[in-house]
Amino acid sequence: MSAATSPLFLHVGLLTSACFVPKSSTDKQAAGSLQWKRKTRIHRRISASSTGDGSNYSSLERVDGLMLPKKSKKADTYLVTGTSHDSRFASNNMDDDRIFRSIFQVRSYETGSDMTVSINTVLNYLQESAVVWGREMGFTEGVGFARTQELSKQDLSWVVVKLQFEIDKYPTWGDVVQVESWMNKSGKKVLCLNSFFRDIKSDEILLRASRSFVLLNNKTRRRIKFPDEVQEGFERYQLDRSLNAHNENLKIPKLEEAAADYVYKGLTPKWSDIDFNNHVNNTKYANWILEGTPESLATSHKLVSLALEFRRECPPKTTITSFTTLKDSITESDEVHCQHLLQFEDGSEILRGATVWKPKGLLPINQKLDSIARTK
Amino acid sequence: MSAATSPLFLHVGLLTSACFVPKSSTDKQAAGSLQWKRKTRIHRRISASSTGDGSNYSSLERVDGLMLPKKSKKADTYLVTGTSHDSRFASNNMDDDRIFRSIFQVRSYETGSDMTVSINTVLNYLQESAVVWGREMGFTEGVGFARTQELSKQDLSWVVVKLQFEIDKYPTWGDVVQVESWMNKSGKKVLCLNSFFRDIKSDEILLRASRSFVLLNNKTRRRIKFPDEVQEGFERYQLDRSLNAHNENLKIPKLEEAAADYVYKGLTPKWSDIDFNNHVNNTKYANWILEGTPESLATSHKLVSLALEFRRECPPKTTITSFTTLKDSITESDEVHCQHLLQFEDGSEILRGATVWKPKGLLPINQKLDSIARTK
Repeated sequence: MSAATSPLFLHVGLLTSACFVPKSSTDKQAAGSLQWKRKTRIHRRISASSTGDGSNYSSLERVDGLMLPKKSKKADTYLVTGTSHDSRFASNNMDDDRIFRSIFQVRSYETGSDMTVSINTVLNYLQESAVVWGREMGFTEGVGFARTQELSKQDLSWVVVKLQFEIDKYPTWGDVVQVESWMNKSGKKVLCLNSFFRDIKSDEILLRASRSFVLLNNKTRRRIKFPDEVQEGFERYQLDRSLNAHNENLKIPKLEEAAADYVYKGLTPKWSDIDFNNHVNNTKYANWILEGTPESLATSHKLVSLALEFRRECPPKTTITSFTTLKDSITESDEVHCQHLLQFEDGSEILRGATVWKPKGLLPINQKLDSIARTK
Repeated sequence: MSAATSPLFLHVGLLTSACFVPKSSTDKQAAGSLQWKRKTRIHRRISASSTGDGSNYSSLERVDGLMLPKKSKKADTYLVTGTSHDSRFASNNMDDDRIFRSIFQVRSYETGSDMTVSINTVLNYLQESAVVWGREMGFTEGVGFARTQELSKQDLSWVVVKLQFEIDKYPTWGDVVQVESWMNKSGKKVLCLNSFFRDIKSDEILLRASRSFVLLNNKTRRRIKFPDEVQEGFERYQLDRSLNAHNENLKIPKLEEAAADYVYKGLTPKWSDIDFNNHVNNTKYANWILEGTPESLATSHKLVSLALEFRRECPPKTTITSFTTLKDSITESDEVHCQHLLQFEDGSEILRGATVWKPKGLLPINQKLDSIARTK
């Protein structure tokens, strides 16, 4: 099987959502111009709620199909108010319209063997919240992946080139998780999106994540400078709110093949791994890294930190090898740091990764799981 | 790698939800007795809504964390009213308390390369709705998989032995799907759960499914007769409402290895496929069947019907082969019927399957996808 050889990047899979914009709203917009319409949209929603059309699913429609808790029954918006008591906040103004929120209730099939969310699910929630963020920012008129008509015309796509997160506490089945996302900073070629996962009942922060996106010319496969219309909007929505987490400028060194402690060969994308962009979805990369780590580590420890640097996209019908090196011995009391590499059979690099694993005994015990354990 | 050799069945993964029952409610129940508490619960919810505690997520809490549209703002229950115009209904009384409803909004990561839900997602929704059904039926006090204290004490688990569905129309990203589930019939050893997937906006039925569950003694691995407490409750909640779909008594003949047109060897469960029962989740079986079908079929056709007969559970570290036979030639105008077999390397049978595939050109076109296609 042949491997891709050009240095491509990974499409983030920001699916187009042109279909969600009511026709009347589309008609009003000038073709090819980017619309920063968040304010307008909220306004439209509040007006709609007061008409009381009496349909059973009106409260869903008003938040564009996202099922979110409401600020109040009268103001039917998706902004959740409340005061955060978390000292790690640089800004705790929950009404800041630069913070976008999505709600996820953890479903049974999104959890692993210990009933906590799988790493795959964490990446899925991050993807969905980025998709929603793109939609709310107005990237809705073009065809493809959260593109404006202009981006679509120029055949430019958003791709994720870096992703990092730290897990403070794993959510479990039935938990309701609020993902808060904001644009941390943006340059001329890179856009950084930060996110918190918050337990909606306890207000606790469960996870802190950052992601970097670039715009890629689909023909030349090169990163391009953001068009002016994109940069202008970014200035308005940029928010200097610290994650108080990882070093966002982290460079992951390449793990040399010969230095790897563990090698897992013959990984192949399955049909179900191929997304709208006709390549392997980025969430699958993390699975391949996890497959490559030794079972003894996964039995005694749990992943608390993940950093991925995407270097090539992965088309169907390729064969991948997962390399892992452990920088620490596996003991009951110590964290284990790992370095990872995914590559094609011809040796070309797909992804660099770094993970940190914590002994299960040192993790905060979820009350529900603890109660089950005690009953046993 | 060793394969399981005893004729086990597949745990459905009805996760315990003891954690969801408020302590006060638990205290009132006699230990070891099964509580049919649906009526009580609904009553409790309506009362709670009138107290108006003012918290932002109170509307979520009142439906036990499930985010469902409301009947009205005053009666804060999860029963959705409305008249069905679908003539295939044997009963269209939407207020029937024997019908349990769960709402799913299709997330971007639950769709495949054509933006419609993946087969995996269909099976996930069916699993989650069965889990919720079990919880609502009162299987909450035991440890393990939707078990009462009595079932837990006797170490009996619910396992799915058969699953069938037909897809009329695929939901796509952002669609809100209501899964309606009811107990169709139950014998002394088998319980049948039927479900419709309904588009909540158009009221259209998208999918019809049936599943059969048995109670398995975890030590002897044999099916047992339902205890009296279980059967009594079932009488009350049984509903004779036709699916107007497949033959629920279908027996899938065994596909003999030598008769297979296609053989896909070396399939192995990954960490992420292992569920709470420490074996491969049933949704993975369908993926393995799909992997075994020829690419030419998946390119021109789309799956519209699936029947699975689970014959053995699949533990970690096993190697599986997927066999497929096509009963029709692949043309642009005709359905293709396939027969499937999954087995371990030692030849022991894991699963029998039958699928029907329809030419993509003959499928009802989703309006949203059609609009995207036209823009392109």
